[in-house]
Amino acid sequence: MMTERELVERLAAIGWKGSRAVLLGPGDDAAVLRGGFTISTDIAVEGVHFRFDWVSAEEAGFRAGAAALSDLAAMGAVPLALLVSLAVPGDADHVTALDLQRGVRCAGERVAVAIVGGDVSRSPGPVVLDVVVVGKATGYVSRAGAEPAQHLWVSGSLGGARAAVRAWSAGKAPDPAARIRFAAPPNRIALGSALAGRGIARSMIDLSDGLILDAGRIAAMSGARICIRPHRVPVDPCAGGDLNLALVGGEDYELMFTANPGAEPSILDLGQELSVPLTRIGMVEAGTGVVLEDERGLRTDAGDAGFDHFATPLPDGPR
Amino acid sequence: MMTERELVERLAAIGWKGSRAVLLGPGDDAAVLRGGFTISTDIAVEGVHFRFDWVSAEEAGFRAGAAALSDLAAMGAVPLALLVSLAVPGDADHVTALDLQRGVRCAGERVAVAIVGGDVSRSPGPVVLDVVVVGKATGYVSRAGAEPAQHLWVSGSLGGARAAVRAWSAGKAPDPAARIRFAAPPNRIALGSALAGRGIARSMIDLSDGLILDAGRIAAMSGARICIRPHRVPVDPCAGGDLNLALVGGEDYELMFTANPGAEPSILDLGQELSVPLTRIGMVEAGTGVVLEDERGLRTDAGDAGFDHFATPLPDGPR
Repeated sequence: MMTERELVERLAAIGWKGSRAVLLGPGDDAAVLRGGFTISTDIAVEGVHFRFDWVSAEEAGFRAGAAALSDLAAMGAVPLALLVSLAVPGDADHVTALDLQRGVRCAGERVAVAIVGGDVSRSPGPVVLDVVVVGKATGYVSRAGAEPAQHLWVSGSLGGARAAVRAWSAGKAPDPAARIRFAAPPNRIALGSALAGRGIARSMIDLSDGLILDAGRIAAMSGARICIRPHRVPVDPCAGGDLNLALVGGEDYELMFTANPGAEPSILDLGQELSVPLTRIGMVEAGTGVVLEDERGLRTDAGDAGFDHFATPLPDGPR
Repeated sequence: MMTERELVERLAAIGWKGSRAVLLGPGDDAAVLRGGFTISTDIAVEGVHFRFDWVSAEEAGFRAGAAALSDLAAMGAVPLALLVSLAVPGDADHVTALDLQRGVRCAGERVAVAIVGGDVSRSPGPVVLDVVVVGKATGYVSRAGAEPAQHLWVSGSLGGARAAVRAWSAGKAPDPAARIRFAAPPNRIALGSALAGRGIARSMIDLSDGLILDAGRIAAMSGARICIRPHRVPVDPCAGGDLNLALVGGEDYELMFTANPGAEPSILDLGQELSVPLTRIGMVEAGTGVVLEDERGLRTDAGDAGFDHFATPLPDGPR
């Protein structure tokens, strides 16, 4: 049995051979075409990414739309349009499909883009929605630009969405703030665009599968080591002080980026300007992989901890 | 219960409000952004669009990729890239996902484009694949340009793919040629691009849901009536002479377009140049809807006959 990561890598290898029309192919948050058009697609499956006893169809749509837009934010791209493909049970009254679409529309409205197309089919199985985002990046930021001595930064706070999933999985009602963190991922388009446009971010990714796993992606693509200082990581207040939720929880849709040490004043200014907390949580070093360094300087290998859609069994899995 | 058409219209109305970045929004084969970037998405669900006792996973992928590219052909756009989102059963060994991706890649290779991204998730239900196509159109052709006195044309021959589905549904092995028509839709990118680039096609659509239903879309978007002469319609030899398969069968992925009468020599030249049969099958008139006119000039209203993914019950439905 392959891990999700291995599967993703093999899928990319099958599909990709280079192309004159393409500036950046698979392996990043989005692909970039010549001319700066940036495109990404994000699939959400009922029973895997969301459950209707957790959130409404509108919320599931909003979440899927916001998650897809987060990939554009991570490239420093500005969104232009959304498309939505839906598969819904054929015997339903289509209310679910319309509510999902309304939810995606709301996520689009938050960044002033419309749904310009899509597709719909009945399905003999769960609801599936695939949200396609199209944007434009002038000077995109990839995952591959991390270099030793750069600092590692993260926006917002982490672990809240996962705290909600943990509560639901235990049959409890989540903290209302945690529920919101799950149902309504943050909008980091302005942040990503400014970090790219001002030349601050040297590498960037959105946190969908957990801080450590996503840091590992930056490390792998950049050929560098990421050192995270867990005591510096901003844990969401609604995560009950559980650092583990912040390190491996996932679903935060915050931005993680690396920047030269001299950019620190610009970063703090930008955070104030946009009212987004930006926290320095580590650094880039020569080497490979991800290490955790505690307050005393003691180090442990972080491994590959994070969410794997395939490794977690259905139907009791957290998402 | 809404029809698929009503659902599609309501979904489009929810999502769309106009946008400065968009030249053409929902309701056509693809959306067109300022700058000519053309984008469409096409979802295929196991048990609805294909079945693994009919075709292999590679064939299902090829078919989904070719069907998605057909939407670009119908706009007169040239493809630049593909993206593929997959939902596959989590307990499978991922062979299916890799084979689907290989199939989409083959469809891309036929028009020299790569798969630049995508997403993958496990699914507790059927295999779902959503293929996103991105292209560029200089002077796109929409569904809305049909005007009275124009001629109606169609490429290739119709009904073959549906003949295969009919055989499978009856528990029989289809004619090998019909099977190929289902598993390997034609590539009409060069044709669509030439029809647009030479200013020949005034309106265009790809035939995915049946000649009559798709003619109705041209009629509705153009505010005109389409008159089809059934005896002129090129029925695929492997459809066993069944005109009905050609009129309402769907899945042909041929192009239907309207053109001024004076363009006929250019159209016939183009057909020879590209080795694609192009047949005049009717005309555009003032009015609404679709009518059929037989050899004696007798007319019948064609109604809305065609394939509705939602109206056809699972699991015995033809797709």
